[in-house]
Formats: sequence, C-alpha cells, structure tokens
Amino acid sequence: MKNLFLNDDFMLGNATACSLYHEYAVHMPIFDYHTHLSACNIAEDRLFNDLGEAWLEHDHYKWRLMRLAGAEERFCTGKESTKDKFRKWAEIIPLAIGNPLYAWTHLELKRYFNIDKTLNSETADDIFDKASECLRSREFSVRNLLRRMNVKTVCTTDDPADDLSYHQKIRESNCETSVLPTFRADRARIISDVKGYNSYMDKLGAVAGVDIRDFSALIKALEKRHGYFAERGCRSSDCSLQPPCFKQAGLKEAESIFLKVRGGIMPDAAELAAFETAILLELGRMDASAGWVTQFHIGAARNLCSSLYNSYGPDAGCDAIGDYEVGKPFASLLDALDGKKNISKVIAYNLNPRDNELILSILGSFARGPGSGRMQYGPAWWFLDQRHGMEQHLALLSSFGLLGRFIGMTTDSRSFLSYPRHEYFRRILCNFIGETVERGEYDDDLSRLGEITRNICYTNAERYFAVS
Amino acid sequence: MKNLFLNDDFMLGNATACSLYHEYAVHMPIFDYHTHLSACNIAEDRLFNDLGEAWLEHDHYKWRLMRLAGAEERFCTGKESTKDKFRKWAEIIPLAIGNPLYAWTHLELKRYFNIDKTLNSETADDIFDKASECLRSREFSVRNLLRRMNVKTVCTTDDPADDLSYHQKIRESNCETSVLPTFRADRARIISDVKGYNSYMDKLGAVAGVDIRDFSALIKALEKRHGYFAERGCRSSDCSLQPPCFKQAGLKEAESIFLKVRGGIMPDAAELAAFETAILLELGRMDASAGWVTQFHIGAARNLCSSLYNSYGPDAGCDAIGDYEVGKPFASLLDALDGKKNISKVIAYNLNPRDNELILSILGSFARGPGSGRMQYGPAWWFLDQRHGMEQHLALLSSFGLLGRFIGMTTDSRSFLSYPRHEYFRRILCNFIGETVERGEYDDDLSRLGEITRNICYTNAERYFAVS
Amino acid sequence: MKNLFLNDDFMLGNATACSLYHEYAVHMPIFDYHTHLSACNIAEDRLFNDLGEAWLEHDHYKWRLMRLAGAEERFCTGKESTKDKFRKWAEIIPLAIGNPLYAWTHLELKRYFNIDKTLNSETADDIFDKASECLRSREFSVRNLLRRMNVKTVCTTDDPADDLSYHQKIRESNCETSVLPTFRADRARIISDVKGYNSYMDKLGAVAGVDIRDFSALIKALEKRHGYFAERGCRSSDCSLQPPCFKQAGLKEAESIFLKVRGGIMPDAAELAAFETAILLELGRMDASAGWVTQFHIGAARNLCSSLYNSYGPDAGCDAIGDYEVGKPFASLLDALDGKKNISKVIAYNLNPRDNELILSILGSFARGPGSGRMQYGPAWWFLDQRHGMEQHLALLSSFGLLGRFIGMTTDSRSFLSYPRHEYFRRILCNFIGETVERGEYDDDLSRLGEITRNICYTNAERYFAVS
Repeated sequence: MKNLFLNDDFMLGNATACSLYHEYAVHMPIFDYHTHLSACNIAEDRLFNDLGEAWLEHDHYKWRLMRLAGAEERFCTGKESTKDKFRKWAEIIPLAIGNPLYAWTHLELKRYFNIDKTLNSETADDIFDKASECLRSREFSVRNLLRRMNVKTVCTTDDPADDLSYHQKIRESNCETSVLPTFRADRARIISDVKGYNSYMDKLGAVAGVDIRDFSALIKALEKRHGYFAERGCRSSDCSLQPPCFKQAGLKEAESIFLKVRGGIMPDAAELAAFETAILLELGRMDASAGWVTQFHIGAARNLCSSLYNSYGPDAGCDAIGDYEVGKPFASLLDALDGKKNISKVIAYNLNPRDNELILSILGSFARGPGSGRMQYGPAWWFLDQRHGMEQHLALLSSFGLLGRFIGMTTDSRSFLSYPRHEYFRRILCNFIGETVERGEYDDDLSRLGEITRNICYTNAERYFAVS
Repeated sequence: MKNLFLNDDFMLGNATACSLYHEYAVHMPIFDYHTHLSACNIAEDRLFNDLGEAWLEHDHYKWRLMRLAGAEERFCTGKESTKDKFRKWAEIIPLAIGNPLYAWTHLELKRYFNIDKTLNSETADDIFDKASECLRSREFSVRNLLRRMNVKTVCTTDDPADDLSYHQKIRESNCETSVLPTFRADRARIISDVKGYNSYMDKLGAVAGVDIRDFSALIKALEKRHGYFAERGCRSSDCSLQPPCFKQAGLKEAESIFLKVRGGIMPDAAELAAFETAILLELGRMDASAGWVTQFHIGAARNLCSSLYNSYGPDAGCDAIGDYEVGKPFASLLDALDGKKNISKVIAYNLNPRDNELILSILGSFARGPGSGRMQYGPAWWFLDQRHGMEQHLALLSSFGLLGRFIGMTTDSRSFLSYPRHEYFRRILCNFIGETVERGEYDDDLSRLGEITRNICYTNAERYFAVS
Repeated sequence: MKNLFLNDDFMLGNATACSLYHEYAVHMPIFDYHTHLSACNIAEDRLFNDLGEAWLEHDHYKWRLMRLAGAEERFCTGKESTKDKFRKWAEIIPLAIGNPLYAWTHLELKRYFNIDKTLNSETADDIFDKASECLRSREFSVRNLLRRMNVKTVCTTDDPADDLSYHQKIRESNCETSVLPTFRADRARIISDVKGYNSYMDKLGAVAGVDIRDFSALIKALEKRHGYFAERGCRSSDCSLQPPCFKQAGLKEAESIFLKVRGGIMPDAAELAAFETAILLELGRMDASAGWVTQFHIGAARNLCSSLYNSYGPDAGCDAIGDYEVGKPFASLLDALDGKKNISKVIAYNLNPRDNELILSILGSFARGPGSGRMQYGPAWWFLDQRHGMEQHLALLSSFGLLGRFIGMTTDSRSFLSYPRHEYFRRILCNFIGETVERGEYDDDLSRLGEITRNICYTNAERYFAVS
C-alpha cells in the first residue's frame, strides 16, 4: 500500500480540489469567530505541562469517546495523572475509525509537533514525551500555538458581567492574534433558576452600575454592558436557543414577570417564553443598532445524565441533540425583529441535522439587502463538526443559498491545539468545490474558484465581522 | 483544464449513465404533470420583451438568491427596469456555486439561445441583448418555447371556480402541446379566513349554478365543477396540506361548522381540522370515482416574513419548510379513504426531507392492486428540486419502493424557460441508475435499463395520468 | 459491458475494500443476535415444499413491493398457489432497481442454489423448479440452510410466557447452530388493550406459578421467567418503544394503575405512560443484575391500514415509520436507569432516520466504563436495512462513536434464506472502511484494519453477548 494517511492530498479527491487547496486555501490565515478559548490563558500566555493536560483537561469530545470504549471516569474527569489519561486515550483511539477525533489527533501531532507516528498503546509514551517536551518550551505557549497556525483573530465567549480585564491585558501586550469578546447574555434571559437568576442580577447590576429593580433597569444594564463590550472590540452577540420559544409580550407583561421572579417566585412555562422573547427582541435591537452579528445556537439538549452532571457540573460530556420544534418559534422571532427593522446580521448554528433544510429555508425568507450574505447558516457545529456533517452542510448551503458568501469554519473549541480543524474543513471545502466543477456544474475558471475559496477560508468572515 | 462545464457528459459519472442518457433519455418528450404556467399566456401565445422579463417577473427562486446576496427589493419585486434586474442577477450568480439556479441559468442560455458564455457582470449586457432579440421573435413565443423542448403535455393548476376559458381557447387553436387543467380546491377547504371564504363561496356558487346554503350544496357545487373540469381533460386534483390534519367528523358536524362560518363566525382549531377532513374525504371520493390522480403537497410553511408579504402578497419568496407532525394525520387520511374504498391514485410531494422515509413508508402501507404504481412518491419538490435533493429522492424511492414505476420529473414552475430542468433530472437519473449497475447491484442489461429509463422520463407519467 | 452484476467484487469500490472483504470478512461466521426465526421450524428441522413457500409465506417486505406493483392481495397474503405467488414476484422484481430485495433475491438464488440467472417472468418457472427441488432435499432443511451460511448463533424473539420447549428440543438434538431465546415482555408492559392484558396476565401467572393479583406479583412472575430464560441461555431482552414514553411513578401509583386495569377499567394516557415506565425500570433492573443486553426498538408505527389489518392481522405489511418525540423520553429512561445503577448493556435500534444523530448523541451521554462498547447503536433496521441506510448508519456511527466496537449486522428476519444479507452488509462495511482509508483518514495498516473488520463481522457481537 502507498502511504495514504494524512498525506499531502488526503481528502482531496480530484485535481481541481488539489489545486484549490495547495494554491489558495493553505495560504489563508484563520479568523476564528466563535470559540470557548480562555482569555485568561492567552493573557498569561500559558504553557502546558504535558500533552495530557493540553488534550484532556476540558475536552468532553475525548471523554465521551473514552467512555464509549469503557474508560472509567477517573481517566476522564477524574484524578488519574495526565500521563495515564493520555495512555488511556492512546489505547482507545485506534477504535475510532472514521471519527473526526482520529484525524484531529494525528493532524495535531503532525502540524504542531512534527510527529508522524500513529497513536496507540505502543507509541503512547514516546509521543507523550516528545510532544510534552515541546509544550514546556516557550515556543509552544498558547500565543505561539495560535501564531504557528496563522490565527489572526479569535473571538471568545463572555458574560455581560465580565469585566474583560484579560482582553484588556491581551490588547496591551501586543499579542499577534487579535482576541475579541462576544456578548453572551443567556444568564440574563433564562429565568427558570430563580435563585441563580437573582444573584446574577445583583452581580450584573453591580458591574453595570445600575440598580436592577425593574425590567427597564435590566435593559439599561444590558445596554451599558453592550456598549462596554463594543468599546473593547466586541462585534457580535451569541445566544443558546434550546428550545427556541416565541411568545410576544408587551413591556408591561415582561415587567410583571420580571418582578415576580425578582420576588423569588417561579415563573410558569408561558412566562418563561414571554420573558425570553422580550429579552431577545431587546438584544436584537441593540445588535442591529451597533451593527453587530447576532449568533443563535439551536438544537442542543444539555446535561442528560444526572449522575455525571451532579458530580462534575456542565460540559461534562453528557449533552446531546434535542428534537424539539424549531420552525415556528425561530421564524416568528426573526419576523418580529424584521418588523421592527431590528434584524441584524444573523448566524444560525443548528445541532439537529434533521432541521438543516428547515433553518436554511427560514433564513432565506428573511434575507434582504443592502449588505451581502447577512443571513448565514453557521458551519457544522459540535457533533456535526466532522467530514459527514461538513459535506452535508456544504451540499445544503450551496443548494439553498450562496456558498460564495459563506463565512466558513470556526472551531467552537476550548483547546489551543484545535486549529488543524481549519485544515480539515478547507480540504473538505476544496474537495466539494472540485467535485462540483468536475461534474460540470460550475464554470471551470480556476482563478474565480480560487477567489471563492480564499473568501470562504478567511475573507468573508473578516468582512462579515467588519473588523478591518 | 479541459472544458467540463455543461459539456455533453456533465453529471454523467460512468459509462452506463452516458449510454442511458444519450441513447434513451434524451429522445423522450416531456409530460409536465404539475406546473403553475399561465394558461392565459399559452392561449395568447405570449412573447417576452426581454430576458429580464422572462426570467425575473415571477421567479421567487431567483429573488431569494438575490436578496441573500444583498440585492435590494427594487431589483426583485420592485420597479427597476427588467434590464437592471437582469444585471443584478448577472452580478450575483457567480456566487451560487452548487446552487441549481447556476446550472439552470446556463442550461437555459445554452438550450434556448445557443449562448455558451458564463453569465456575470462583464457578459450581462451581451447575453441580455442576444437572448432578448430571440425572445422578441415569433419563434420564441411561449408555445414555441414548449415545442422546442418537446413538451407534449402541460398540466396547469386551477381553481374550481375558474371557467377554463383559456384552456378552451388553447384546445381550439391546435396548440401542439396539450394543456390540461388541475382541480385545486384549497379555497373551498380552508375556512380560517372567514370573510374570504364567504366571498369565495358566493363566487363558486355562481359559477356552479348552485346556491351554497349548506354543506351538501357545497359538495354538490364541487361535484359539478369536478365534472366540468373532467369534461375539459382534467385528470387530477391537487391539494396543499400544511399541516396535514385529520379529524373524522360526521356530516352533521361538517354541516354545523359550515353554517357557522357562513354566518361569519370564526371556527376554532378543532373545527378547522374537522371541516378540512370532511372536504378531503369528499374530494377523494370524487377523484376515485373519476379515476383521477390525487396530489398532496405536504411540508410547506408560507409567508413567514410579514413585511414582505404585506407589501407584495403571496409567492414573494418568503416561504419555507415546516416542521409539523405528518405521520399520524396523513396515514389517518389515507386509511379513511381506503376504508371507504375511495383511495385513488395518489402522489405525495414532501418538502421537509426529514420526513422522506416516513412518507415513503406510509405510502407503501396503502399500496394495493389492481393497477401498478398507484401510490407515487412525488419528485423532489421546490427547495429540494436540486441535485442533492434529487439524488436523495432516487436513493430513498428505490430503497423503499419501485423505481421502475416512478412517474418522474415535473417542473412545478411559473417559467416557460424552465424545461432544461428535465434534462438536469434525466442526467441525475441516468447517473443514479448507472451507479447502481456499476456497483453490481442490478443486472447490466442495457436494453432493459433503457426501457426503465424511458419509462421514468416519460411513459410512466403518460400512462399514470391515462391521457392517451 | 463486462459482467458486473453480483460479481466477486460487487459493491467493493476500492482496493482496500477488496482486500478486507476477501481476506477477512468472508471467512467469519455469523452471530445473528436478533431474529424472528421460528424455533419450532428449527426444532423440527423443517423442509420447504418449494421456493414460493420459503420466500413468500411470511415476507411482508416482498408483499409490500408486490402491492406497489399492483399485485392483488391473493398473491400476497391470499390463497393463490405458492407457484403463482412466486410467478407474480418474478414479474415485478425487475422493476425494483436499487431496492435491497433485488440484490437479496439474486444473492439468495446464487449462494443457496447456485443459480446465476436473473429472475423475471421468462426465467421464473425454471428457477422455481430448480430451487424447489433443492429445498425438498434434506441438505436444504432449515438447519442445513443455517449451516451452509456458517451461522454459529441465532437469537429468537420470545414471550416470557413461552415455555421454550422448542429451544430445549434444539439443544438436545445437537444442532450445529446455537439457538438462544430473547425475553420480549411487551405484552406485560402495554396495558391499553385491557381485555387482552388480563387474559395474558392469567397465562403468564400460570406459567410462572404466581397468582398475579398485584403489581409486586407481576414483577415476581417476570423475575421468575427472566431467570427461567437465563437458565436456557438467554442473554438479552427486547422491547418495542412506540412511542417511547417516560413518566416516573412510585410503586404505589403503579400498583393502583395495575389494579384498575385488572379490574377491567381502561387506563388513561398518563397512566399508560407511568405503568410502562415502571415496568421498563423493573426490567432494566433485572437485565442489569443478570448482565443481559437490553434492546430497544424505537420509531415504528404499526398497522396503519385498517382494512388490511382487520383481514390479516399484524405483520401484514402495513407498518411504517413514526414521527413522534424521542429525545426527552428516551434520555429520561436511560437517566432513571443510570440513577439506580441499573443501566445494562443497551442496543438502541432506530427506524426514523431523521433521529439517527439524536439517538447516537443520547447514547454517548450515558456511556461509561468499565466494559467497552456497552452503548450500541443498533444496525440499520427494517426499512433502513439497505445500502443507503447502512452507509448512513456507518457514517454516523463512526462520526459519533467507535466503529471499532460495533457489534455489526443482524437479520431481524423471519426467513431462513435471509443470511446473504450479512454478505451484503459486510461488503458495504469493507467498502466504507476502504473509502475512509483511501481518503487518507485512517492509518493504512491492513492487519489492524482486518482485525477491526473481523470484530465487526463477528467477534464484537460474540463478546458483547458474552456467549463464549
């Protein structure tokens, strides 16, 4: 057999794809517009002790796979040493044929550490030692990891009550990568946990310098934080809709629900929906007025395994896809925003692929000028961030919309080593475009195709977030 | 690069596919059994002033893509000149890689006007002038456009209150294409708009010569129009189920709901469902007795963007896919028809692809002889009418049913220039069959395969609608 | 044209696939862990009179296809001779291009009877005679049919009230194939048919030697039967969730619902859900304690066509896919089992492919060690048991989980001639793995790949059911 695994042309199935990847895609920098990277780690330019720490500290993707292979919890969220956790990972990864983690794992070894070996129990210790030695050197600090992968911009995900001091520190330190905050106000919107909500209101009020006694004061506090974020480079908000709900309510109704919750009383389901809707419409107004991008994450179901959640907390790796109704509430929300001329640039990410076409068709119903590509169907997200999910995403996006305006990949990751996922995406993208061309469905003009490829890899996102 | 774009073998990925397409498919005429073409235009044998008019007058597919690219409304439904609208279209189409409109656009230029250039801002004016000059000549009248594409039969979509005078005129004028009406009684079934419904009842009653004072009179009026349509060549009814609902009701209950609505009172949701069901069962009875085909369109969600709908009306391009429950109501409807031995030939079109397998499995549960291929899973519809949607349709139809009995493609279009979509479908069909054969899953007997291909391209539909 | 149809390499699209299939997969025996084969037929080592009897006696797959082609009921469930039924099947099968039944039909002719001809009306009688002659000889008894296909283990599906006497007889007769029962307690769980339920309770009580007067007695009876099955080699339970429902109830509530039903009173929907849940949790406890596998079948909708059901009964071929909510109830059930540490090994089969990713993501949320591959996403089931469904299954399973731990194919069939479906699956599996490798996504180490292939074909299932 010839050497196929991760070779120069892997996943590039035709000549057009190879040309597009090697002549265009590979040269583009990265604009990572949605991540969960730690601003603190970047501010402090963290070094990792070893590859086990870098790979397994917060990675619920890997934990899930390890649990499926029978690894006990001490190797995932538990107290085993980073080396033993890594060995467990090495033991199970050969089983993961076709899983994105198999390709990511080996791409990361190759691109960051120049390691070409296949990871398994036999090679585990050598690989651990070599990579860990690298990681302990300054050239592999988190800022240098970003620089190596040509990451020009990273957007973190932040709470309105965050003071963004780490972002401030990063800016002041002449970091080569631009690190921007994102305004994620879920905690101000979801009132089902009454006690948690009230203590959050106190915190938010203190940070904003607003006494949040009523709904208008809450909106005022959010506006002040929105402005504060904007001054610090924020270009977008983010919001988790699970399930998306929509129930139009007047100011009076929102006010009365808010006072009820502030009084410690549990809202009912209708009130929860009405309140969420009221906040979403206010946030939409702020985003539109600031020219921000509004990001919606749709389709998750969180913390399904109570025992794991109770012992570890959120992001333990027991989240899944939800199968709730999406069409009416999401379309109604967009319609309400549109009716008030408050519809901003929108990215909708979707986790349940059965609703891919649904959401694409809804987005297309609210598109309008001026401004090109304002309604974006976000890249294949989380469980769907793999070859199959990406190919489906590209096939559907191109069939329903304008591939040429797509803002491309984002990692949505907690790991500083996850940037080869952009390479993975770009290969799939070039392969997809190449197949379309080789099937005779698009003009085979390489310079135009190259331009489209470059735009999707980087330029569309940069323009969309209007950073430059 | 060799010239791949829309060349002789485009989308034909293997030798069997090439043989089937060039030796069989290409020679078959077209039986377009579901369209929204204007009978008036055919009766008057309309000429178009220019390509902008022919392409952009009613085409909400193109409008949506233009809006996604940032085109303002004046270029879509608005008052810009047809030439400037066309230029806008030319400007954005290069972004639409992988979109069916890209292939359709260039196939239409090639097949009707012999234009081989790629459309973009540079080529826009030349292409506009050349195609428009053609369109203004008699050889490019709408009848001649149909004749050029070998369209033998077209079925329009008509209201029971329509007098079909244009169809009469067409018949009397020895039009080469047979133009048949379709009986679409949605306005007699959906009572949610009480005022509109009552004025429609008056109109229908006047045309039918029946005083529609009660439910029986309504059924009598519909029966008379059903007969009137049958006498004028109609072979099928059509019906938009969105969402499909089913609530069995006695004649008495239907009567009382009807009287309530006629009295100007808004029905509740249960009454709406009961009334729809009553009408659907009556229409099913009429279709079965006349030997017609009953067409169901399932899965749409209409007019989502209120501002666009309010300024333009329906078919503005803000329709989408719906995610409502389909299984139980649709199966119950078929079961009720079956129980009364009133199940006719049925075509079910489905817009939400997540329900493809669901609907295929339901149709298979109600199939029975005598008469082959009575339960048809309609071709990939609307948003799904693209390569990806068609390939999925063929994969699922063949896996769940009898591809050899498929009645094939219909345009469902308002455009007289949309007939190359049949070529597009046929290439995908031949490619699909070719792949199945080359994988070794079907006997590689070319003459049998050719026969199957011819049947799907034309003969099955002709037999199914029993026109000849 | 070269001879492609079912040749040595059919469905094997690349060199790696060919090596994996011919060097590894083809040599593995079969572990058929879920079937509806008749233990009685195996005990009596039945001979079939002819191919019509063997193929069309209970095969609702074939009936559905025949009905779609217009065959009247007398050729399906009715009284035509087996020869005329067979002739009808021969008449319609050429239409089924791309349908798994086309490949299965010809693979069965080839692998069992050495018949290479294509089945159609011309060849029907010859094929019928040749295969029937074989079938009437002892070498083609059902045990020999199993032996020919190297079937090492078959699991039947049995009611807790079954005395398993046929299984006893099989064991005593030194049958080469191991035939194990499966514990399917649906009739003890679903109380909607009050009269049927009560008479079943009487039967179950008699067999178990328990007077089932209250809920605890019912659990005791089930426990006794569970033990009885375990002693006779049973390694797993099975359960049809349609729809899955979950409503936690205390023992008291379960008791009161049970007494109500035993008193002849119809339970309401909430009671039905609460009772089902109570039984499922008890059965889960028994399975966990016995180390059994718990199988869940999710997504069916049964007996949709009343006229067919009323004249023939269940399994007439009018079942379909359901589109009910799956996520919350299924996750809640697993969470409740997990909370009591009663989660056993689980196989979830899913019939509505729109929920593939949903269920995979839920299973991954409840995976944990020790014990590898405990949460299994069952192979493509029923309507999905075809090339397209299998390819989707493999793509998603590998993207979401650990393909290397997959327990592989099971026939779920009533037919003793259905074993070439394992060949069909194995070719698709090898092709899938081969594609992954040739795309450069997995280390191209043939011996490791061969090991993975062998495991999925046989060894994983054997280990999972812990038979050896």
